[in-house]
Amino acid sequence: MIEDKNIQRTELSDLGEFGLIDHLTKNFKMNHKSTIKGIGDDAAVLDFKDNKIVVTTDLLVEGVHFDLSYMPLKHLGYKSVVVNLSDVCAMNATPTQITVSIAVSNRFPLEALEELYAGIETAASIYNIDVVGGDTTSSTTGLLISITAIGTIDGDNEVYRHGAKPNDLLVVSGDLGGAYLGLQILEREKEVYKVNPNNQPDLEPYSYIIERQLKPEARKDIIKLLKDLDVKPTSMIDISDGLSSEIMHICKQSEVGCDLFEEKLPLDPVVISTCEEFNIDSTTVALNGGEDYELLLTVSQEDFPKIKANPSLTVIGFIKEKESGIHLVTRAETKIPIKAQGWKNFNA
Amino acid sequence: MIEDKNIQRTELSDLGEFGLIDHLTKNFKMNHKSTIKGIGDDAAVLDFKDNKIVVTTDLLVEGVHFDLSYMPLKHLGYKSVVVNLSDVCAMNATPTQITVSIAVSNRFPLEALEELYAGIETAASIYNIDVVGGDTTSSTTGLLISITAIGTIDGDNEVYRHGAKPNDLLVVSGDLGGAYLGLQILEREKEVYKVNPNNQPDLEPYSYIIERQLKPEARKDIIKLLKDLDVKPTSMIDISDGLSSEIMHICKQSEVGCDLFEEKLPLDPVVISTCEEFNIDSTTVALNGGEDYELLLTVSQEDFPKIKANPSLTVIGFIKEKESGIHLVTRAETKIPIKAQGWKNFNA
Repeated sequence: MIEDKNIQRTELSDLGEFGLIDHLTKNFKMNHKSTIKGIGDDAAVLDFKDNKIVVTTDLLVEGVHFDLSYMPLKHLGYKSVVVNLSDVCAMNATPTQITVSIAVSNRFPLEALEELYAGIETAASIYNIDVVGGDTTSSTTGLLISITAIGTIDGDNEVYRHGAKPNDLLVVSGDLGGAYLGLQILEREKEVYKVNPNNQPDLEPYSYIIERQLKPEARKDIIKLLKDLDVKPTSMIDISDGLSSEIMHICKQSEVGCDLFEEKLPLDPVVISTCEEFNIDSTTVALNGGEDYELLLTVSQEDFPKIKANPSLTVIGFIKEKESGIHLVTRAETKIPIKAQGWKNFNA
Repeated sequence: MIEDKNIQRTELSDLGEFGLIDHLTKNFKMNHKSTIKGIGDDAAVLDFKDNKIVVTTDLLVEGVHFDLSYMPLKHLGYKSVVVNLSDVCAMNATPTQITVSIAVSNRFPLEALEELYAGIETAASIYNIDVVGGDTTSSTTGLLISITAIGTIDGDNEVYRHGAKPNDLLVVSGDLGGAYLGLQILEREKEVYKVNPNNQPDLEPYSYIIERQLKPEARKDIIKLLKDLDVKPTSMIDISDGLSSEIMHICKQSEVGCDLFEEKLPLDPVVISTCEEFNIDSTTVALNGGEDYELLLTVSQEDFPKIKANPSLTVIGFIKEKESGIHLVTRAETKIPIKAQGWKNFNA
């Protein structure tokens, strides 16, 4: 949280002609056979043989998607990659390459960009993806990161949002609400820090949820697990905006309804205790929190035996006919319509 | 140049949940067989069969890459696409798909984004590419456009920057310096407008160079021409930063030298007359102007008969051994070393 004023500062303008992108990417290794040519020409050249590919892109803006007062640049680099890989996974595809474009104001020294790229490199290494392209330019104000991710599909195994059928099970990976609560903790500490910069907060009890916010993971492991279990979901989406919003997407595009069971929502104990501390309802957090980057999928009933014993997957509801609508079934067994939460960025 | 204050203004926040990207892209048609799924899921799904592909990305920032006081939004949308397609063409590939991400502040009404997307759609239609993905988010300040373009390669016909060989001919498409001079005219008129908003400038004599700046084209036609002529360049790059800078790239990556002949530089009559008007040297403009988006290529001597009669291609020099260095041979037959001009964005 404390900006170290003593770190070395190299102005970006010192790098000279085309030095910056070369400098930042010089340690990046190409591991995929499909990467014929990475950074260094007008475009990357890729060869996927006869595999289909998926392409997705995301733009992260300082002050809108991240706050550098509590988001270390290395984490930001890591997270920027992960949110794109999560979209690739949500197609049941395996991520293989990314391109990274950065716009940055001259308030950032070279060392800051090195941190950012160290995070990008770490994510590339952990997820085994090649960074094959990029662009670094100046911005009149803050930092902006645009990433495009590419992945390959095994045979005809792509999974869309629109394939859910009545009676399918609604399944989620991992647990929900942690990333949102982690953000609440970080924002609270930021306010404390403003008042008393010498305060040393004890964030240890919140480490799980802070990590969920600062260093989320794309569930590439779930894509592999589904393959190992021989389960092809009927529909899938990643949870970036919040569970209720993603359920709405699947239901709208699949033209189906859904019953979601409150008692089935997977919550980490830290999520429950932090909700109590903040006096907010854990179900609301699980439904609307966002940024968990878990996968929400629907599977045919006949696949239930394959997934039921798996600790990474939780059945949280089932798909119904469109006419039944989309409902949360509460612990008290009342049914509440699930509404779209909307896309908040332009309303802020 | 004059902002019409009376146009309809719909706030972006009025669009509601996920309405914006759907609204902006609803008229976009998918024409390519390789586009299995475009916008509307976590990622696009593409199938190129056994063709290799190229991927390139570019980020355009308001106040750095464009100035909305003289760049109409529709032209900006068009140009944003074109600069990426130009990179695809520079690999000797045919552009097929793009993704478009926009960050925009709430100073822009919906109608402004519709204009921008109308330009994107026009480019997509003219160049026969599918817009398969995108993201629209808010920005704390101006407008930012990030585009990723994908293209296919016919067989093993990709062309890199690094294949130039001594004795190859150095060839350029079209003519040079126009885009830079168009920008000078627009900036001059902007200053006049600030002093006297009622002044009606006569820009007719400059229409060619203004169009070069506001509505450049990617030389997809040259890629087709080279194929028809059965010429595979030994190296190729597009001219975005200026001829001298691109020559340096080819020579550095190919480990060769080069003689460039001043008298061979293709200049439009309007470029020559405008240089006289501004009292600047046309050779300097041709070498360093940038943004012409012409193709710079090297071809083997034996292909000379195939290209010599073609009005779209001009031989401007030849490749030499690395030890000879990189020189401009002037009209007075003196040799001047060509220096890198550098990348100006961070020095501004």
